Amino acid sequence: MPDSKPEQFKVGAYKVEGKVDYDAFAKMSGIKPIDDELKQRIAKYTGTLHYMLKRNIFYAQRDMGWLLDEYEKGNPFYLYTGIAPSGAMHLGHLMPFIMLKWLQDKFHAEVIIQIPDEEKYLAKEGLTLEGIHDLAIDDALNILALGFKPKRTKIFFDTEYASTLYKQAVRVAKRITFSTVKDAFGWTGETNIGEIFYTSMQAVPAFLKSVEAGHNVPCLIPLAIDQDVHFRVARDVIDKLGYYKPAIIHSKFLPGLSGASKMSASDPNDTIYLNDAPDVVNKKVGRAFTGQQATAELQRKYGGNPDVCTVCQYYKYLFEPDDRKLEQILDAERSGKILAGEHKADLAKRINEFLRKHRLKKAIMKEKLESFMLRS
Amino acid sequence: MPDSKPEQFKVGAYKVEGKVDYDAFAKMSGIKPIDDELKQRIAKYTGTLHYMLKRNIFYAQRDMGWLLDEYEKGNPFYLYTGIAPSGAMHLGHLMPFIMLKWLQDKFHAEVIIQIPDEEKYLAKEGLTLEGIHDLAIDDALNILALGFKPKRTKIFFDTEYASTLYKQAVRVAKRITFSTVKDAFGWTGETNIGEIFYTSMQAVPAFLKSVEAGHNVPCLIPLAIDQDVHFRVARDVIDKLGYYKPAIIHSKFLPGLSGASKMSASDPNDTIYLNDAPDVVNKKVGRAFTGQQATAELQRKYGGNPDVCTVCQYYKYLFEPDDRKLEQILDAERSGKILAGEHKADLAKRINEFLRKHRLKKAIMKEKLESFMLRS
Repeated sequence: MPDSKPEQFKVGAYKVEGKVDYDAFAKMSGIKPIDDELKQRIAKYTGTLHYMLKRNIFYAQRDMGWLLDEYEKGNPFYLYTGIAPSGAMHLGHLMPFIMLKWLQDKFHAEVIIQIPDEEKYLAKEGLTLEGIHDLAIDDALNILALGFKPKRTKIFFDTEYASTLYKQAVRVAKRITFSTVKDAFGWTGETNIGEIFYTSMQAVPAFLKSVEAGHNVPCLIPLAIDQDVHFRVARDVIDKLGYYKPAIIHSKFLPGLSGASKMSASDPNDTIYLNDAPDVVNKKVGRAFTGQQATAELQRKYGGNPDVCTVCQYYKYLFEPDDRKLEQILDAERSGKILAGEHKADLAKRINEFLRKHRLKKAIMKEKLESFMLRS
Repeated sequence: MPDSKPEQFKVGAYKVEGKVDYDAFAKMSGIKPIDDELKQRIAKYTGTLHYMLKRNIFYAQRDMGWLLDEYEKGNPFYLYTGIAPSGAMHLGHLMPFIMLKWLQDKFHAEVIIQIPDEEKYLAKEGLTLEGIHDLAIDDALNILALGFKPKRTKIFFDTEYASTLYKQAVRVAKRITFSTVKDAFGWTGETNIGEIFYTSMQAVPAFLKSVEAGHNVPCLIPLAIDQDVHFRVARDVIDKLGYYKPAIIHSKFLPGLSGASKMSASDPNDTIYLNDAPDVVNKKVGRAFTGQQATAELQRKYGGNPDVCTVCQYYKYLFEPDDRKLEQILDAERSGKILAGEHKADLAKRINEFLRKHRLKKAIMKEKLESFMLRS
């Protein structure tokens, strides 16, 4: 796992580089931590805390205190997040949606899910809108497989919902200059004008329920930190339009199997896709970086470091929600009780078990997808 | 009427300044004249030539020869033009639509009319989308009052047709960089990102019929020269997408009553709106610039100059389609036979008569509008 100083990482909406210093990122971006007091306030309504909150995987926020104030006053919020299709979904992509579902369950909240099927078309080479459409449907099925409430959940593709979105995006776009997106996204003269405009489309669902309701409705967005920049720009604009700024909770990235800060969708070996076959998962996890000692003997003697062991991180982020059991796993790694082979085999088994069930649920969603879709 | 050198005028999509040198503009923009040979080719299909073609009011073109080649081969074209609502329509706004209707009648062509109800919202201060929506409906009625064929004519507002337009606009936008629109439209860092993107939306109807048909369909766009820049950018992109570049015929501007090159929508005294009451028309025409001599005696002795007389220009552009009769009017001005008062009173009468009938036809269109509208 490469070591780097805070200034050696970069978290952009379209590229993440280096080892991310999450606290430094939050500070730079003006995002507040989710501290113990805030966790307790959340737990007041949710009973137990989601393990991703307890473990600081969702670790930072904007206006979460205000959102709970409103909730206390009887002003409930809706939830919004999304994913831009550009390839098969991987495990890391699920994290904001796992939190989304938990929040929906605990707060009985309405959910809108944006699938911006133009974003990666504009940002990358080699993609067609037709190809992305197929990926968008697959993404929608992967998301809905998590078990969202049918009556409270809507999902849309930008190009199919544009007669609703574009009108509102224009209101946002009017209030954002090229200079602003140049600074925020690093755009240049060579950036295409679709990419330049796109952030307006991502802003719309954060106030769309207020437009439709005819009065202000609070919105909470769970997202991975690389998406914060869109709302860093949009929140002030949404405020100028007379709507509540959306509240946000921010997650860290699921590390790559190589130990990289972010599981990369473009490096197949660093990534476990939701459609990876069991033997592929076994092979990929078998090659994962654990940071264990050079030999079994040395590992037994000195133990390993769970903080750099990607196998341990996968338990922490996704595959061991029970804190006590997680501690046992980390302890076994730390003390040298467990060797890499067994450690990896157990994780691969859990991943494959999760993926098997996930695919069953996904298959069931195929015929239900249409009932979740918004078009206009 | 101010005199100016070629370099002292500016024709931009959002601003026209100075006295336009139309030939210089065509040369600068790479637009070819509509020469006698081309007029004869058009007349081969249309029988008589529209007075706006004979008088070089529609004076320039792109790919019109190619369009007629295709027509000859049995590959008919469709017609597209539009207007961006920002205030009441004036007489000058009607010119491309008068040509549009004539072309529809002569070539039995399908017509699509774009009302980009976001364009001026993005480009100007003080407009709301709701206010523009009312103007858009009024514009649509003013256009349809000209008598387009119900079965071959469709009209849409961008924000209501965006689920069709946006997907195609994204394909255009991907192939246009900020540098390109910076040069073409003069955009800066302070330009908003909606304005930057907008030209993609204006490009779409120029190839939309090809998308829908699943094969290439030629398109002809009659427009005023200030709109050429959108297609100067878009034509190459449309070609890259594999569609025919649209052909274009370009009109000069109806001069302002003060003698300015372009009737200004924002100067009420320079402009006759389609909703101006008869006494308002009388007053405005009464103040029009004629360039006649200082006294009636001098005028009778030396005569006037029809080329600078706005009253003569209004006959030429809109109110005397008969060439012989027009020549009589210009002769009377030239020879000093007619004095300004009579000259103006006759024009005002014709304008009021036109507007009276226009409003009757417009009123009838109110209940028919819906049948022309495209939504998605």
